[in-house]
Amino acid sequence: MTEKAPWVTFRPELKVLDCTVRDGGLVNNSKFSDEFVRAVYDSCVQAGIDYMEIGYLNSPRLFPASDYGPWRRCDEEDLRRVVGDHDSAATGLKLAVMADAGKSDWKTQILPASESVLDVVRVACYVHQIPEAVDMIQFAHEQGYETAVNLMAISIVQEIEIEQALEVFATTPASTVNIVDSFGALYREQVDHLVKMYMAALEGTGKHVGIHAHNNQQLAYANTIEAIILGANRADASMAGIGRGAGNCAMELLLGFLRNPKFKLRPVLQLLQDHMLQLREEIEWGPSVPYNITGQFNRHPREAIQFRAGETPDDYVKFYDQTVSDI
Amino acid sequence: MTEKAPWVTFRPELKVLDCTVRDGGLVNNSKFSDEFVRAVYDSCVQAGIDYMEIGYLNSPRLFPASDYGPWRRCDEEDLRRVVGDHDSAATGLKLAVMADAGKSDWKTQILPASESVLDVVRVACYVHQIPEAVDMIQFAHEQGYETAVNLMAISIVQEIEIEQALEVFATTPASTVNIVDSFGALYREQVDHLVKMYMAALEGTGKHVGIHAHNNQQLAYANTIEAIILGANRADASMAGIGRGAGNCAMELLLGFLRNPKFKLRPVLQLLQDHMLQLREEIEWGPSVPYNITGQFNRHPREAIQFRAGETPDDYVKFYDQTVSDI
Repeated sequence: MTEKAPWVTFRPELKVLDCTVRDGGLVNNSKFSDEFVRAVYDSCVQAGIDYMEIGYLNSPRLFPASDYGPWRRCDEEDLRRVVGDHDSAATGLKLAVMADAGKSDWKTQILPASESVLDVVRVACYVHQIPEAVDMIQFAHEQGYETAVNLMAISIVQEIEIEQALEVFATTPASTVNIVDSFGALYREQVDHLVKMYMAALEGTGKHVGIHAHNNQQLAYANTIEAIILGANRADASMAGIGRGAGNCAMELLLGFLRNPKFKLRPVLQLLQDHMLQLREEIEWGPSVPYNITGQFNRHPREAIQFRAGETPDDYVKFYDQTVSDI
Repeated sequence: MTEKAPWVTFRPELKVLDCTVRDGGLVNNSKFSDEFVRAVYDSCVQAGIDYMEIGYLNSPRLFPASDYGPWRRCDEEDLRRVVGDHDSAATGLKLAVMADAGKSDWKTQILPASESVLDVVRVACYVHQIPEAVDMIQFAHEQGYETAVNLMAISIVQEIEIEQALEVFATTPASTVNIVDSFGALYREQVDHLVKMYMAALEGTGKHVGIHAHNNQQLAYANTIEAIILGANRADASMAGIGRGAGNCAMELLLGFLRNPKFKLRPVLQLLQDHMLQLREEIEWGPSVPYNITGQFNRHPREAIQFRAGETPDDYVKFYDQTVSDI
């Protein structure tokens, strides 16, 4: 199909996931107020967003309530305090959590779906954790959830390993396999290469390819729409782009691009001015030069995060020299 | 030519233009200190940047010294006070000015090249000013300058008009024709369409296609590298992305992408921390929600600029409603 101007139309099967509370929780140890989480939830419902990832389903041993807010563990009582008896059919919104391989007590934390307000479990793993991830996907599926998988940090994974991982994921019940640019290091041509690889590997399985981009080089939005253009049917975004380090694709940009009239930008803008501006006064996220540099060098952003929190957050040359000498 | 991973190589003919002082001058009426302009100049030389656009060659009648800094008019004495007897062969840097059709007294302002430190005149015009632009290009060429042309606001120009303009520009001495996304409204597929159109129209003329992007939707950098990928050999960027409204493609991002070892990122980072951080305290530029919205609606950013300068710069819903009701 060669269309003259495909950007004026839309694909009904394209679905959007809000990861504000989940990924944003990496900035503030998931210490969001109930009021804030509820406001995000209401905004997602009003905006026609398909999924809201409300936090991590990770272990209370590793992430105790003394140090982390409830959205790192997502106990059922915490969820219900905010979203009540959430009904995905009535609201059009599915509630998701992320369970990290190696960090989740998933056998006890994933309740039967009939006992939970949650609809979806997304499993995140690094390339050395694929066997556990497969077990987690299978278990969550058997408990009655829609499942998805995020293979993280793929910009430092060998291509044959990604191909092997995709072969494995193709045999699981996961409905979606997400391309995750954890380091915000990918350029458009690399996104193209990966989207084509993921789509080819999953062809005929009925599974969707998704995209989760980071904004280290101010390319999160561009790479997200690039993946969409090439056929990715799942896209992650967050309000004001909140997320670890340089943050994610901004929901207000993504919804402005999508042409499906079910998506409404106005409720998102309302959330930005009512809540995100205040949050920006309290915590930092978004692209800055140190994140540009870790993205350019294809490195984990943790050094940039530390540098931004240190004594000389704007001594860019120092950070550059330190990075150059360290590779 | 099908390359496996073209992003690890480079095209020697790709040249970068710094428009910090020229486009940034639209934020502060071109009131940059001599010290600042000299620092940008030094940074460009050290970073291996090919062109520095040092200001506008526009009329002192329209832009008097009482209201505008010297970089709006670029009198030879002002230029020489900062760059001395600038030598492009010795520094590797060509000095450019922009002359706006309708705003420049070009017949008197463009001196013979032998009497000026300037190397390049870029002519900017809207679609209704093409005949004057052609005269300006011809005159500047005859005075001994390299010339280029920027047809502005093309996201609201009819395609047959662009095609006609390109036919005309192909007959001029202009060495470069720039794709100018004045409204920051273009998406990747539109950039592709335009780059292909410009390249086809100029094929065989020896002219280059350039890209001048704006960051209203945080796509300036992405669209710039997209144009480069498709063959554009001239790219505009500015330090910290300074420029009218949402600003331009950030030089620190562009140089991080380019693989030609002649480009050095470090001098740019030094300028950012020594000068651009302070400037950010004094004047505002860069993407924010009102610019996102004018970009999404393919409108001139002037309303967003006014809104950001007004009483309620962060009342995004108000600006959205105002924009929606006004179209």
